[in-house]
Amino acid sequence: MPTTTWNRHHILSLADFTSAEYNAVLQTAASFQEVLSRRTKKVPTLQGQVVANLFFEPSTRTRSSFEIAAKRLSADTLNFAAATSSMTKGETILDTAKTYLAMGTDIMVIRHKDAGVPQAIAQEMDRLGVKVSVLNAGDGQHEHPSQGLLDLFTISSLIDSAQPRIELLAGKKIAIVGDILHSRVARSNIWSLIASGAEVHLAAPPTLLPKFFAEYLGATENSQRLFTHWQLEPALENADFVMTLRLQKERMTAHLLPSLREYHQLFGITRTKLKLCKPNVKVLHPGPVNRGVEISSDLMDDPEFSLIQSQVTSGVAVRMALLYFIGSGKVSGI
Amino acid sequence: MPTTTWNRHHILSLADFTSAEYNAVLQTAASFQEVLSRRTKKVPTLQGQVVANLFFEPSTRTRSSFEIAAKRLSADTLNFAAATSSMTKGETILDTAKTYLAMGTDIMVIRHKDAGVPQAIAQEMDRLGVKVSVLNAGDGQHEHPSQGLLDLFTISSLIDSAQPRIELLAGKKIAIVGDILHSRVARSNIWSLIASGAEVHLAAPPTLLPKFFAEYLGATENSQRLFTHWQLEPALENADFVMTLRLQKERMTAHLLPSLREYHQLFGITRTKLKLCKPNVKVLHPGPVNRGVEISSDLMDDPEFSLIQSQVTSGVAVRMALLYFIGSGKVSGI
Amino acid sequence: MPTTTWNRHHILSLADFTSAEYNAVLQTAASFQEVLSRRTKKVPTLQGQVVANLFFEPSTRTRSSFEIAAKRLSADTLNFAAATSSMTKGETILDTAKTYLAMGTDIMVIRHKDAGVPQAIAQEMDRLGVKVSVLNAGDGQHEHPSQGLLDLFTISSLIDSAQPRIELLAGKKIAIVGDILHSRVARSNIWSLIASGAEVHLAAPPTLLPKFFAEYLGATENSQRLFTHWQLEPALENADFVMTLRLQKERMTAHLLPSLREYHQLFGITRTKLKLCKPNVKVLHPGPVNRGVEISSDLMDDPEFSLIQSQVTSGVAVRMALLYFIGSGKVSGI
Repeated sequence: MPTTTWNRHHILSLADFTSAEYNAVLQTAASFQEVLSRRTKKVPTLQGQVVANLFFEPSTRTRSSFEIAAKRLSADTLNFAAATSSMTKGETILDTAKTYLAMGTDIMVIRHKDAGVPQAIAQEMDRLGVKVSVLNAGDGQHEHPSQGLLDLFTISSLIDSAQPRIELLAGKKIAIVGDILHSRVARSNIWSLIASGAEVHLAAPPTLLPKFFAEYLGATENSQRLFTHWQLEPALENADFVMTLRLQKERMTAHLLPSLREYHQLFGITRTKLKLCKPNVKVLHPGPVNRGVEISSDLMDDPEFSLIQSQVTSGVAVRMALLYFIGSGKVSGI
Repeated sequence: MPTTTWNRHHILSLADFTSAEYNAVLQTAASFQEVLSRRTKKVPTLQGQVVANLFFEPSTRTRSSFEIAAKRLSADTLNFAAATSSMTKGETILDTAKTYLAMGTDIMVIRHKDAGVPQAIAQEMDRLGVKVSVLNAGDGQHEHPSQGLLDLFTISSLIDSAQPRIELLAGKKIAIVGDILHSRVARSNIWSLIASGAEVHLAAPPTLLPKFFAEYLGATENSQRLFTHWQLEPALENADFVMTLRLQKERMTAHLLPSLREYHQLFGITRTKLKLCKPNVKVLHPGPVNRGVEISSDLMDDPEFSLIQSQVTSGVAVRMALLYFIGSGKVSGI
Repeated sequence: MPTTTWNRHHILSLADFTSAEYNAVLQTAASFQEVLSRRTKKVPTLQGQVVANLFFEPSTRTRSSFEIAAKRLSADTLNFAAATSSMTKGETILDTAKTYLAMGTDIMVIRHKDAGVPQAIAQEMDRLGVKVSVLNAGDGQHEHPSQGLLDLFTISSLIDSAQPRIELLAGKKIAIVGDILHSRVARSNIWSLIASGAEVHLAAPPTLLPKFFAEYLGATENSQRLFTHWQLEPALENADFVMTLRLQKERMTAHLLPSLREYHQLFGITRTKLKLCKPNVKVLHPGPVNRGVEISSDLMDDPEFSLIQSQVTSGVAVRMALLYFIGSGKVSGI
């Protein structure tokens, strides 16, 4: 186990993550990945602690991943789903969070359709001087840090499974393809990939990657490693990894897309298009996949190219690492 | 730990609670409150027992509180929500309860929109001669005993945190403000506060505290300690504690209330109105709060006056005590 | 504990169950029934394993039974309900299953409104070469093997509680009454009862037991022990056990039934009709019961005749046995 001290109390965004933090997560996730391969996959680290999954926006997949991660660490879990909650009774979100605080919750895993909600709750917890940690499980179009970290872990442990570290990505060309504009996954990935020294190429139709967005991104100090394209091909050329993003079908009805078929023709990933990339290119997708839209159905199931299943598995190990850090507040032997 | 023997098998109502029972709950909850402040907050008391939360009426808050309480005692929990259940398939409530009995449930925590359902289930269990205990988590406009007990614990442990006991409330003036007519919380609180020797002042508009209700209450032997008011001020004068009740917004559409704004003006608790009370008055609310209706928003967040967060925390300790009593059937060392 | 080796990896259907397998389940369920009568009802068998209840079709009753069974074996459980899942986001069922696989699920308990879904998922798991087991918790009108096994356990342990075994049913006359055509429970029961050497008499109105169905069944090698009737009486005559099936009320609106009252008059089980059976006849029903339709209300509650509660209890023990076999892959001391 690494011996770094972990100081971050809440995990809300990757925008200000340090290399040391990235590496602490990657190395600890690798340790947990090893635990998960044993017959008994539980460790007693968070015994007696309560992890509350406050999912104001429903997501079975992400909620299950956090729930398994928490249970592997022997925590007790509580699930809150907005639909059946007192949210419908007019209670504010901060009041809901404070209720779970008062019940003895140690870690709140929060998903909300609006950007900034996890941060607002974290600020309120800090203002109250309590030790509860907040983990952003996706807020609007802002960030989805655990997804960014599990993608980073998936890629870096593919390169060196024993010692995954952010430096392994330096100089790699990584394409991010799809609805960049509305994607919190893209944002979290951009932060971690830029920090790793990779070269990041965004590709999307203009409606999903508007000029102002490109300019905003280009204006940063990272402009020399971040590129935007309104066509797929230049992003794919010699790419080491291709990250596809989920396409919300409602984008089409909002007239941002002509048709799913045309989208697939122009920006969908297929075997033919992958020939532009490096020979051993790998494809990622945060799931759930619209088969035949973002990615062709056969490619998705081909373990030679697809890292999709590996991402889901990484998700549990990375979330165990995150819960471990903010739950125990220190890095010492598992 | 107290050495009293606990004989009550089901917890359905506070109407016939004895002082000894109130004090057993208060003292045991205090012990559990202490357990909850430790790093490892679990005790093995109910290991292997199954606590089923049968919530025919949804309530995330109360269900989570019971779920945490059960898990702290190492019980296994099952959640049943009417919406997704075979209730929609025409099964009767008693049949549902008997199914959970047959599966091996040890304690049933039951909420239902109709008064009397938990009692009917408890009677059926007794008729069948089984050891299952029923805990009423709110039935229609009848009672919500664990809420009454947690309010009692909140108040009495504020006065003496080491030894909370019902006698500490003797002679205190306590105002209960709001929709008395439809409130199961008010009914449970009236029983426990009268039993404690407190002076209870109910305040509400006539539509929410009709004459027949006042006469019904006034006709009891408790008439000398129970007072009803159609105005707020006489209830607040020199009050030690003010209990506000949740206002169901549907009361307004049922023409029982003119408008929320007018309600707040007449019966909402504000800093100004609190000046009528004792200087160190405290305010309670069972939650979820309609901010700016039953209570002004700033007052709710002011720890000098508000006990709302403390009530939620007390809820877990009190529910642990109740599950402990009916689950283990005896009072001996935790 | 029996010393047989268990080789079946998935439990999808009873059609090809061997006598040795039936008896292994019955004897192991009897051992677990004994565990359930102890004060501490848990065994550590599946500690650290994850049992995911993937209920694409909702069922609180069956899901709770599996959840209790898994928790008694110390497994961690995950509940997935289609309504709140990414199914609504267009993900395929196989992709959902593969996501739960990738998260580290050890056993998938699957219910779906379409026949064949659990089998399709099991085949996919085998194709992928992974060790995950699939347990069919009801698929369309196909099978509900754990229900068939719990009915077998209920009957055989009534005859010999210490050593329930399939041979005990040889020569018994068992009537299955109701909506045979649409019932997965009937199909699973037919397989197990025929295998036991019992004489099985199906009784239903022609719309719910059409000629082609009778001919299909009659054409098998079991024709000499399987009989179909369009009237109730010949099925009941001298019967040892009467299995009633749940009637879906939508059958009536689909014009397959005249009225519930007429159905009850012709095929509903009452005390009077039971006089045709053996004196100590017992009645079963998989639940939830439409009181006064499939069975008269007073009969359902009469422990002299009704095995309904006993079936629910058996369900937990039988499901523990099934999870134990496919979770541990061997039969050795609990």
